[in-house]
Amino acid sequence: MTQRYVYRFGGGVSDGGKGDKNLLGGKGANLAEMASIDLPVPPGFTISTAMCTRYYEEGERFPDSLKAEVAEGIAHIERITGKAFGDAADPLLVSVRSGARVSMPGMMDTVLNLGLNDATVEGLAATSGDERFAWDSYRRFIQMYSDVVLELDHGAFEEALEIAKEDRGYTLDTELSAADWRELVAEYKAIVAKEWGKPFPQDVHDQLWGAVGAVFGSWQSERAKVYRRLNHIPGDWGTAVNVQAMVFGNMGDTSATGVAFTRDPAKGDRAYYGEFLINAQGEDVVAGIRTPQYLTKAAREEAGAKPLSMEEALPEVYTELAAVFDKLETHYRDMQDIEFTVERGKLWMLQTRSGKRTAKAALKIAVEMASEGLITREEAIARVEPQALDQLLHPTLDPDAPRDVLTKGLPASPGAASGLVVFDADTAERMAADGKAVILVRTETSPEDIHGMHAAKGILTARGGMTSHAAVVARGMGRPCVSGAGSLSISAKDKVLRVGGREVREGDTLTIDGATGEVMVGEVATIQPELAGDFGTLMEWADGVRRLKVRANAETPLDCRTARDFGAEGVGLCRTEHMFFDAARITAVRQMILAEDEAGRRAALEKLLPEQRADFTAIFEVMAGLPVTVRLLDPPLHEFLPHEENEFAEVGRATGLSVEQLKRRAAELHEFNPMLGHRGCRLGVTYPEIYEMQARAIFEAAIDVAEKSGEAPIPEVMIPLVGTKRELELMKTVVDAAAKAVFAERGRTLDYLVGTMIELPRAALRAGEIAEAGEFFSFGTNDLTQTTLGVSRDDASRFLGAYVEKGIYARDPFVSLDVEGVGELVEIAAERGRKTRPGIKLGICGEHGGDPASIAFCEQVGLDYVSASPYRVPIARLAAAQAALQARA
Amino acid sequence: MTQRYVYRFGGGVSDGGKGDKNLLGGKGANLAEMASIDLPVPPGFTISTAMCTRYYEEGERFPDSLKAEVAEGIAHIERITGKAFGDAADPLLVSVRSGARVSMPGMMDTVLNLGLNDATVEGLAATSGDERFAWDSYRRFIQMYSDVVLELDHGAFEEALEIAKEDRGYTLDTELSAADWRELVAEYKAIVAKEWGKPFPQDVHDQLWGAVGAVFGSWQSERAKVYRRLNHIPGDWGTAVNVQAMVFGNMGDTSATGVAFTRDPAKGDRAYYGEFLINAQGEDVVAGIRTPQYLTKAAREEAGAKPLSMEEALPEVYTELAAVFDKLETHYRDMQDIEFTVERGKLWMLQTRSGKRTAKAALKIAVEMASEGLITREEAIARVEPQALDQLLHPTLDPDAPRDVLTKGLPASPGAASGLVVFDADTAERMAADGKAVILVRTETSPEDIHGMHAAKGILTARGGMTSHAAVVARGMGRPCVSGAGSLSISAKDKVLRVGGREVREGDTLTIDGATGEVMVGEVATIQPELAGDFGTLMEWADGVRRLKVRANAETPLDCRTARDFGAEGVGLCRTEHMFFDAARITAVRQMILAEDEAGRRAALEKLLPEQRADFTAIFEVMAGLPVTVRLLDPPLHEFLPHEENEFAEVGRATGLSVEQLKRRAAELHEFNPMLGHRGCRLGVTYPEIYEMQARAIFEAAIDVAEKSGEAPIPEVMIPLVGTKRELELMKTVVDAAAKAVFAERGRTLDYLVGTMIELPRAALRAGEIAEAGEFFSFGTNDLTQTTLGVSRDDASRFLGAYVEKGIYARDPFVSLDVEGVGELVEIAAERGRKTRPGIKLGICGEHGGDPASIAFCEQVGLDYVSASPYRVPIARLAAAQAALQARA
Repeated sequence: MTQRYVYRFGGGVSDGGKGDKNLLGGKGANLAEMASIDLPVPPGFTISTAMCTRYYEEGERFPDSLKAEVAEGIAHIERITGKAFGDAADPLLVSVRSGARVSMPGMMDTVLNLGLNDATVEGLAATSGDERFAWDSYRRFIQMYSDVVLELDHGAFEEALEIAKEDRGYTLDTELSAADWRELVAEYKAIVAKEWGKPFPQDVHDQLWGAVGAVFGSWQSERAKVYRRLNHIPGDWGTAVNVQAMVFGNMGDTSATGVAFTRDPAKGDRAYYGEFLINAQGEDVVAGIRTPQYLTKAAREEAGAKPLSMEEALPEVYTELAAVFDKLETHYRDMQDIEFTVERGKLWMLQTRSGKRTAKAALKIAVEMASEGLITREEAIARVEPQALDQLLHPTLDPDAPRDVLTKGLPASPGAASGLVVFDADTAERMAADGKAVILVRTETSPEDIHGMHAAKGILTARGGMTSHAAVVARGMGRPCVSGAGSLSISAKDKVLRVGGREVREGDTLTIDGATGEVMVGEVATIQPELAGDFGTLMEWADGVRRLKVRANAETPLDCRTARDFGAEGVGLCRTEHMFFDAARITAVRQMILAEDEAGRRAALEKLLPEQRADFTAIFEVMAGLPVTVRLLDPPLHEFLPHEENEFAEVGRATGLSVEQLKRRAAELHEFNPMLGHRGCRLGVTYPEIYEMQARAIFEAAIDVAEKSGEAPIPEVMIPLVGTKRELELMKTVVDAAAKAVFAERGRTLDYLVGTMIELPRAALRAGEIAEAGEFFSFGTNDLTQTTLGVSRDDASRFLGAYVEKGIYARDPFVSLDVEGVGELVEIAAERGRKTRPGIKLGICGEHGGDPASIAFCEQVGLDYVSASPYRVPIARLAAAQAALQARA
Repeated sequence: MTQRYVYRFGGGVSDGGKGDKNLLGGKGANLAEMASIDLPVPPGFTISTAMCTRYYEEGERFPDSLKAEVAEGIAHIERITGKAFGDAADPLLVSVRSGARVSMPGMMDTVLNLGLNDATVEGLAATSGDERFAWDSYRRFIQMYSDVVLELDHGAFEEALEIAKEDRGYTLDTELSAADWRELVAEYKAIVAKEWGKPFPQDVHDQLWGAVGAVFGSWQSERAKVYRRLNHIPGDWGTAVNVQAMVFGNMGDTSATGVAFTRDPAKGDRAYYGEFLINAQGEDVVAGIRTPQYLTKAAREEAGAKPLSMEEALPEVYTELAAVFDKLETHYRDMQDIEFTVERGKLWMLQTRSGKRTAKAALKIAVEMASEGLITREEAIARVEPQALDQLLHPTLDPDAPRDVLTKGLPASPGAASGLVVFDADTAERMAADGKAVILVRTETSPEDIHGMHAAKGILTARGGMTSHAAVVARGMGRPCVSGAGSLSISAKDKVLRVGGREVREGDTLTIDGATGEVMVGEVATIQPELAGDFGTLMEWADGVRRLKVRANAETPLDCRTARDFGAEGVGLCRTEHMFFDAARITAVRQMILAEDEAGRRAALEKLLPEQRADFTAIFEVMAGLPVTVRLLDPPLHEFLPHEENEFAEVGRATGLSVEQLKRRAAELHEFNPMLGHRGCRLGVTYPEIYEMQARAIFEAAIDVAEKSGEAPIPEVMIPLVGTKRELELMKTVVDAAAKAVFAERGRTLDYLVGTMIELPRAALRAGEIAEAGEFFSFGTNDLTQTTLGVSRDDASRFLGAYVEKGIYARDPFVSLDVEGVGELVEIAAERGRKTRPGIKLGICGEHGGDPASIAFCEQVGLDYVSASPYRVPIARLAAAQAALQARA
């Protein structure tokens, strides 16, 4: 049996269904599904993603067998529609659309009105009774086909249209008559002949195969590759191609086209939400060229808009559409994102899919659907992308802060952002790489802007609605976006935007509020997010199912406070080196480092002890009653060294050493690979007095807090960069001695643990014996990734992009744990550690502790806790719950 | 049952034997063994090493139970000798000597003549009939005890002796009478009372316990620790203490003391070899204060020395001694190093042990003993320390080279060395650390000089014989040494040596020839070593038993030639980066690196191709018919960048770029951790054209050589720093395409392999899938050690010393493979690689490939070959044979 590549839908036939997304793409699978539940779907067929894969495998050629399958697909459409492909009397026109497993908005190609040629255009004129419509459709087809399939520059066509209008004294396209369009078609064909070197293809089958090839080809376009890389979509998935009978939203005032969500995708409210345009083709809505009308009367009134809503303008079709919405939501048990067309009063469904939504909306929808009984609580937990919570966890604009509002646009993607204005994507990327926060300002965005949108903190456009490219992409990325701020006049060339006599230039600061659409000059103060309501409800449900504890990486009282407010159950990583950088004590730190002997170091450490104790006291006060893992000094000492002349001079005054001596000593401390140098417990082994001071500070502070608050913190003293049992033994001796001394001095004891980070491959392998000396392991997956992969995080940027693009790394291994490599070491260490010391406490404290995929891995391996940065604690709580649910399944 | 700590020997009793070295130390075990085969051993007892361990565990205290055991030991000696410890009439005197498992020459303490006090000295005078001897012995005892046990400065005693001689107008010690010594004893006791604050201990039991404690204490002395670290002796072995009845070689002209080897320890000749002194105590010989006499007449005559040999001076005892030598060699089946004393014509054996020997002697002795039938060939192979061959494999002085001989000393340790003269150990160490070759010149060496001797290329002393401290230690370390060059006058203070009106100052160059004793001014040309004779025989035997193939790390035709002469069976690692540094092409390399795009890189690579091809042609010519593993470019590109202004200017001229642009680009290439940066196959992935050029050069050269010589080399193209299968796949595609292209152009093909280094932990873990893409693995254990342990070899020096000293690393992991950590990864990779691709070729090409312990590991894991630097190839061959024998056992 030869493999089947073509799957039909419509007219009572559904060769596939919603379960076939991998094979048919999301669009194709859902068209088949909608057809199977008797929704009005124009008939068509899907060429599967397997064909795309084969197409590339065979050097961008189609196998012969496909011909017959496609012919049968066309015949299917002809049977249902009663029209014939290429028939001069009653021609069948089709759309050819891409459709990958997951939506890649605007990334890939589409051809509409295919099947028109010099003969069939007359048939279309006759059957539609609208000659102007027929010739307009033909010229649209030539232009689109030339752009997408023939890859000609679209400028020539636009220019010809402009000249035609000028010649005739018109301003609007609508003023052109059938005869005008017919003349323009002739000009368009001349342009094609000139630019392409051959006449515009008149054979409708040639047209079809050209379009199918172009759609498959667009899978490997640069912009599609960039999108896949940013969205972690494998290159070998391929796209499907959907060929479907055309329906027309541009056949007069009883025709329309629109997009809709079954609930509000920005706020999550249970209300139909969408936009439509009367007498327009579908692409007109999403392209953001005409500003569309609201779907419902309520929405129109709320916005204070004049043009009638669909509910008012086309009440009967609207009622039918609303019924379809309800049917789809119940059927799919999720909020749907829908495309539809009304052709002369008849409703046609062109697409449905789970709707992208903001985190806020996702939360609200999930919680409400669970309350409605549409889904279970467990499903609600699974529905919210933990990563997306990030949007909700960051500060929003302080409503009481003074603000200088420049203008207002549509609230296209929530969140507030401040940054320097830039007018093109490349500049955005470059300045972001330099660590600058930027706001990308464009008249409208296009897929070519993706990398700049990704680099920007926020996006502002002058044109386009809530479902424009900018809005959809920004919501997907979690970037705040204000779209369609129509009062803005933007000159990307001159790098300036103007509004009401004011000018903002590149490098000036703007603030945008994606929740209100406000655009403000300068930076506006922010406040902490509100964590009650749906957020609180979902978190409570999540806490009910998760097994992993969630701690925070925090090293200041403020971080600790934030973490505790976000639900952290302890501190998993309190780094101590940043405390050493404090301006008030850096001189003492430098004095210690530059000391020639132990006595010199001890003298400096004596000055640091009260400061360190104060650090820990402040942290323990916030975390009273909870475990706090304190990592003893880790970085190479040279990081603390003076750089500037005056710094050297200052240390010279403090130490009595000459600047020359200090510089010599600093040069001695230089390392070729500091990451693999004299750091971590190697400092503790060679200068035990440093760890002794830190341990003393920890225990003195813990007892102070225990005495004051009555609630003792549980210090977990963590020795970094251990590779052998002996290192940990030696350092534990130092810590235990400090504890013993402090307990004796203070006449009381408290519980504490001494353990180690597992951040070297050797430590993972020797975990069995290291567990003899250590009471807990915390996986330092940042360094473990660096050593296991042999990649320095600071230097990886030169090749990491190429590595992800070429499929060497599925994702940046510093963001998402390399489960196959680093993960195996974590598993080995967990297994061997537990064998020696059953019940040994195991946690993770690298950046991966806040990454949902990595948290799922931690659940699988059975770690006790993950530790994430304070703002990622809720993400970790939700991800841990999802991982627990997945483990149960 | 309480544990036993005291073991007796002598007088028909032997509580232990030669198998008890771990418990009784080497000296104690062999004293017991000699006693058991009826050799004349003064009676005594050994306090075991277990006591030493317990002594340290219990805070440097002895358990009460030891008292009775020691008392019984003393009683044993009293029974045999008929003397009583502390008896004023006929006192028993004992020696107290250390004795660890392995000999640590001069490192640890000894006390002689113990048991003398104000009363027993009179008894000794009476029983010996020699008052002068008795009082001399007493003053020696006070001086030694004060130094070793009471830790008083010995300067005061020496000063008192000098003053006594001056006062009396004497020059020599021998001029002092019994009365003089008696007066000096009074002075010595006064010094002790003043310096120590208490009178010299008169209770002989107090004396004994003090001495035992001092010997145990000397185990932890700084010099003992340094020696252990240099010789990889674990700190927890401990030492035993031997208490033995004194016999006296200083009781007149029928008394003597000496040291001997049963064969020549320098050349290996089958001839008794040794030195003795008439009327002397044992320490006089090894201390090198008096120049000793030869043992045999033949040796005396060969040296042209006047003082009679022992064979001539004491013929009867000599005959007895010779019989003992033969008996010991047959009994131990190895060359013995012996200490003996003759007391008034009666021979006593004080020590026997396997004699340290030069590599040359070890070879000769092993081969000859096998030929004599004393040992098997397998035993002969096992007898030669592979590491020691290093001495034989380096160039010796060219006999035809002009030489300016300054003076001549004793040929104390073979080999030739040139270097800058230094006069103290610290300077030697410091200059060696700066990469300078140094010759350490001392009047005589002492244990405090060990670190300087280790750092030096050669050692020259003015005093001391062939068995002096300098000679023994130098032979042990494999350093050339000329000792006893009596014409030298050395002033360490003024940093100058004088001889016959000539002066050599610190920093001047000297050459020494340890095989002839010649000392030459300046550097003398060298020639390649002779590899026939015993060396060839043993290598042939070794090749007959080894399983591992041995290749060489070589990247020049000269290296390849050397390697092939030394028996290499291929090249295991041909690095290509050094070729890039060649002055003739570095500008093209820099042009490539600094190019802004692929076209720029290709232009530069085009210039490099013929050069690279010539490199490979030269190497393949030497290695024709053998496999050559070529590693494609590995180091970070910035290593090739210009540093100096004029270099920048030159590259600027070649590239047309401004110096400023070049500097900016160079700064861009800077990396924080270049070891973990943009290097290895990451270069090949981002700039495939580099690897493409290198692959083309390899295949073009290989075909050239195949055509010219008729013997095709077998190129094994090695991709460095692979961490994922995909990287190897991508790079293999590049290499295969180059091969295909070259084969097509040249109309012929040849066999080649494409494989990878396994040098990242991830690569080891994912070896199963990497083996799908690669045809061989070569373990790059240098980098694998760096990543597994998280230690940069370039930066490790700051803590590696402390790490070895504190027992964290047993040995420097860059010298000897960390079997537990890195080794497990090698095992995992070998196992998983073989599972995917049975018979996959596995080798090791890190520095460890030439380290015998690491080679033993490679044998265990079943690798196919090891690759070592050319001069280490014979070492690897022998070590591989030993490993194979061990595996059979």
